[in-house]
Amino acid sequence: MHPYRTHSCSALRAGDAGQTVRLSGWVHSKRDHGGLLFIDLRDQTGITQVVVPAGTALLETAEKLRVESVITVTGEVVIREDGQRNPHLPTGEIELRAQEIDVRSAAHVLPFQVAGQENYPEELRLKYRYIDLRRDKMHANILLRSQIIASLRRRMQAHDFTELQTPILTASSPEGARDFLVPSRVHAGKFYALPQAPQQFKQLAMVAGFDRYFQIAPCFRDEASRADRSPGEFYQLDFEMAFATQDDVFAVMEDVLSGVFAEFGKGRTVTAAPFPRIPYEEAMRVYGSDKPDLRNPLRISNVTDAFADSGFGLFAKIAAAGGEVRAIPAPGAGDRPRGFFDKLNTWARESGAGGLGYIIFEDEGGKGPIAKNLDPSRVEAIRERCGLKAGDAVFFAAGKGDEVAKFSGQVRTRIAQEIDLIEKDAFRFCWIVDFPMYEINEETGRIDFSHNPFSMPQGGLDALNNQDPLTINAYQYDIVCNGIELSSGAIRNHLPEVMIRAFEIAGYGEEEVEARFGGMLNAFRYGAPPHGGSAPGVDRMVMLLADEPNIREIILFPLNQQGEDLMMNAPAPVEAARLRELSLAILPPKPKATTAKD
Amino acid sequence: MHPYRTHSCSALRAGDAGQTVRLSGWVHSKRDHGGLLFIDLRDQTGITQVVVPAGTALLETAEKLRVESVITVTGEVVIREDGQRNPHLPTGEIELRAQEIDVRSAAHVLPFQVAGQENYPEELRLKYRYIDLRRDKMHANILLRSQIIASLRRRMQAHDFTELQTPILTASSPEGARDFLVPSRVHAGKFYALPQAPQQFKQLAMVAGFDRYFQIAPCFRDEASRADRSPGEFYQLDFEMAFATQDDVFAVMEDVLSGVFAEFGKGRTVTAAPFPRIPYEEAMRVYGSDKPDLRNPLRISNVTDAFADSGFGLFAKIAAAGGEVRAIPAPGAGDRPRGFFDKLNTWARESGAGGLGYIIFEDEGGKGPIAKNLDPSRVEAIRERCGLKAGDAVFFAAGKGDEVAKFSGQVRTRIAQEIDLIEKDAFRFCWIVDFPMYEINEETGRIDFSHNPFSMPQGGLDALNNQDPLTINAYQYDIVCNGIELSSGAIRNHLPEVMIRAFEIAGYGEEEVEARFGGMLNAFRYGAPPHGGSAPGVDRMVMLLADEPNIREIILFPLNQQGEDLMMNAPAPVEAARLRELSLAILPPKPKATTAKD
Repeated sequence: MHPYRTHSCSALRAGDAGQTVRLSGWVHSKRDHGGLLFIDLRDQTGITQVVVPAGTALLETAEKLRVESVITVTGEVVIREDGQRNPHLPTGEIELRAQEIDVRSAAHVLPFQVAGQENYPEELRLKYRYIDLRRDKMHANILLRSQIIASLRRRMQAHDFTELQTPILTASSPEGARDFLVPSRVHAGKFYALPQAPQQFKQLAMVAGFDRYFQIAPCFRDEASRADRSPGEFYQLDFEMAFATQDDVFAVMEDVLSGVFAEFGKGRTVTAAPFPRIPYEEAMRVYGSDKPDLRNPLRISNVTDAFADSGFGLFAKIAAAGGEVRAIPAPGAGDRPRGFFDKLNTWARESGAGGLGYIIFEDEGGKGPIAKNLDPSRVEAIRERCGLKAGDAVFFAAGKGDEVAKFSGQVRTRIAQEIDLIEKDAFRFCWIVDFPMYEINEETGRIDFSHNPFSMPQGGLDALNNQDPLTINAYQYDIVCNGIELSSGAIRNHLPEVMIRAFEIAGYGEEEVEARFGGMLNAFRYGAPPHGGSAPGVDRMVMLLADEPNIREIILFPLNQQGEDLMMNAPAPVEAARLRELSLAILPPKPKATTAKD
Repeated sequence: MHPYRTHSCSALRAGDAGQTVRLSGWVHSKRDHGGLLFIDLRDQTGITQVVVPAGTALLETAEKLRVESVITVTGEVVIREDGQRNPHLPTGEIELRAQEIDVRSAAHVLPFQVAGQENYPEELRLKYRYIDLRRDKMHANILLRSQIIASLRRRMQAHDFTELQTPILTASSPEGARDFLVPSRVHAGKFYALPQAPQQFKQLAMVAGFDRYFQIAPCFRDEASRADRSPGEFYQLDFEMAFATQDDVFAVMEDVLSGVFAEFGKGRTVTAAPFPRIPYEEAMRVYGSDKPDLRNPLRISNVTDAFADSGFGLFAKIAAAGGEVRAIPAPGAGDRPRGFFDKLNTWARESGAGGLGYIIFEDEGGKGPIAKNLDPSRVEAIRERCGLKAGDAVFFAAGKGDEVAKFSGQVRTRIAQEIDLIEKDAFRFCWIVDFPMYEINEETGRIDFSHNPFSMPQGGLDALNNQDPLTINAYQYDIVCNGIELSSGAIRNHLPEVMIRAFEIAGYGEEEVEARFGGMLNAFRYGAPPHGGSAPGVDRMVMLLADEPNIREIILFPLNQQGEDLMMNAPAPVEAARLRELSLAILPPKPKATTAKD
């Protein structure tokens, strides 16, 4: 007989009755029933009830055990008595009558309980993470994460992608977020950087002739923590394809993501491939966001014309000044009490808007302060444009360009939440495409890159040479799920002359481009294939599938929000000799005023 | 038609003749044949011959192309003429008659050639790694590496292991090699460390109730580079099992390793499970090494008794002083010329030994300087002990304990090489088991840990309390293949009281143990399962399977031996502002004399 176990704690059934077996696990709970002692014995797979018979020496051992002690129990499988069976437990028909108990590890008094659903302070849970991880939900989250990653790998391999390991000790990126630095001992005064993403390496892998690369890639950014972002490291499904168009990239991702979300979605609806493709301009216009939540059925309409030269002076003035008025429908909200509209108005003011005007549509015309001042034909035009009917309402956001777009997007979300329109149990994916290559920098008034300067401009060199830069779109895209951006991506600019011209438009001279990005440019001069890719965030996918808004709940051993590992005590001071070896000295910290910048 | 390709460069066959297809790839080579131009077009999968017809505008484009330019060719698949077919090429029956050529990326003059087998300086190859990786052997090595890792993952998952990601930004290890440090910006003066191995985290995962953990784990050691070790990062197949005995660990590894080596061994022989298990003491005695190469059939014998009080004064003296004489057989070496024996003797002297005595066995008795001074019955006893016959020879190593063991191991290797006895095309695995827990520290004369202080002593607390420490073995083991140690491993000591006693024997007080290893000890106080594991080096496995002695040939983007990335220029100086942000200042380097310690 194996010294620790013949079965797992979820394996035994009525058919095993009469067998002598051995189980090992944690004492999940203990119950004293008139001399008999019941132990719920737990391992990763489940729980088996152990009975320690009265009047035996075993009972003395068992009574002394604290919960979460680790024991090995040898005994006979017996069918539970009628009325004692537990239909909720896979092993609920049987129990293990203990004949021998070996205490493998006696537990001290715990800082918090493993059994049960009680909440404990996060700092305590992080300090004793190895106990917290035994709790049902956490254990399930971590196993789910592992299964999701394994499935992503299988699916990428099925699409002929090769997983490659890119360096972790590497060079500082020419731009982007803040790098973590690693001092070199051998090269005093020099530093490695941890990669913010393997972006350059994956592009170089394309230049090296690897056709389809992927990696569950550890990435590092020295940035402030957020609920959905760890302060230190995170993982992305990094991938890149040679000789690929934007459609090729989409086809792979749609298959992989819809597959993974269907596999682990527990019956939740998943957008089937092909995912909707929404141009950036349309996303801002119709959803008021470049990451629209398509579970929200509301669509925003531009109703500026209905207010131009109208009796509603405020909006007429905005229209005259080149601003816009956007209408956000609120189907069925017509019978809501006045307080509903007042509350939304207060929210809008608190969000920094002037307020939140509205019209309630009735059988004949509209109701409310705006309708009073608006020609009935204009009210009717708005109703028609928004596809509404009597009993519905519409809210208005007014202002300039981006500002009104973003605010109307917030209103869209808020209204859908208020009237409970957001689809439940669904993962709604879309691509945002056709991001503009350039924009006017509001501060300098000059042309600047909108997003990624390394994406291929649509129309290539010809467009750069002959088109108004502000009308040029890039082959750049975002993948969005339920209003959450999983990743940006792009068909890359692999042509040095196009890159130099693209930077020239944004005001960078050739010498500066060569100095800053010469490494990549040079690589592209020795035969580079057209290529593109993306890098959906693994942590975000797991958060969505685990329905878990706190990223630390889906990471095995996370740093806390201050970037500290409370269990291992990191970061920590190091010995003077180690610093001396690295040719480093520690300066007193900067005054608060300057360090608090972010 | 897809803008880049309808087929890969290895796909087309005679059956495709007449089709119009499109291929993309690199211009591997160009040959001019009387007006016609032949291009070998290459992608990751293979090569297709493209013909550019004479007298067309295409020819002009094609003639200007440098090799390694990237092009898209559209044209008709035609059967090659008789005598033009290439049976060595999967696509050798056809060629692609170009009708359209799009130049995707024009290559400059290359720093070295992709086609061909020429050797180039490693520094040049590393600087232009993206070109070097296009070369046949390098490309194949990297793909092999990826396939091996994917196979390791599949096999571990088939054994119910769960892959978990342990932190990369973590705390400095309490011991072991030198950590890489990462300064914290938020916590001025404090540092994270990159993990040398996820040892503590995987043990904590066991305490957290994860039954079987594995990870293709990135590990980091700030140590000098060696041929088989990268100066910065490396990967290991890190794993750990709860409720597992040493035999359980062995069973998993034997299945996984023999499976992977059979899968990628290209027909080379692989030790079948179970692998031989050789106690440490036996390994040192019989093979003169704790990492014996079992492809070498030679076995060392202790023949001290044959020399005790004998006429061969040198060995008799060594035997009398408590030393040993070990015999290393050289089957069939009896007819080697005198020069053979002289050369080995010279080698032994150069290796620091006194020389290398020998006996040649003849039909009657032995030959050579030693045999002359030795009683024939003693010569016969040696022959018998070594299992030799007339025509064979035997060499002798003499000296004290470890020294003679190691030297006889070197002789064993050298002789097997000289007489060509090392088995070809085979992977011979073995476990080295029963490592002693303690040894006498030669410098201090006190008892010290032999290897890993955290392994479970055989016999547990009872052995520690009641046995001579120098006779206690640990549940610690090495896995060895062809004389290369792939990994150490152990059943861990999960019992705080046993650990404190084990350290006490080695002279550490309880307070010191708590101060240094309190984190792990505390975790073990809340219910820890017995557990054990190992962590075979991925890079070493790939080197063995790729038959590649230089580790940089099996890594995508390696650092050079000085720890520099010549392509990305790392490590590099950083801006003063970045250092200021990290509260760091750079000191002048230490004087050479002190830094050159390793």
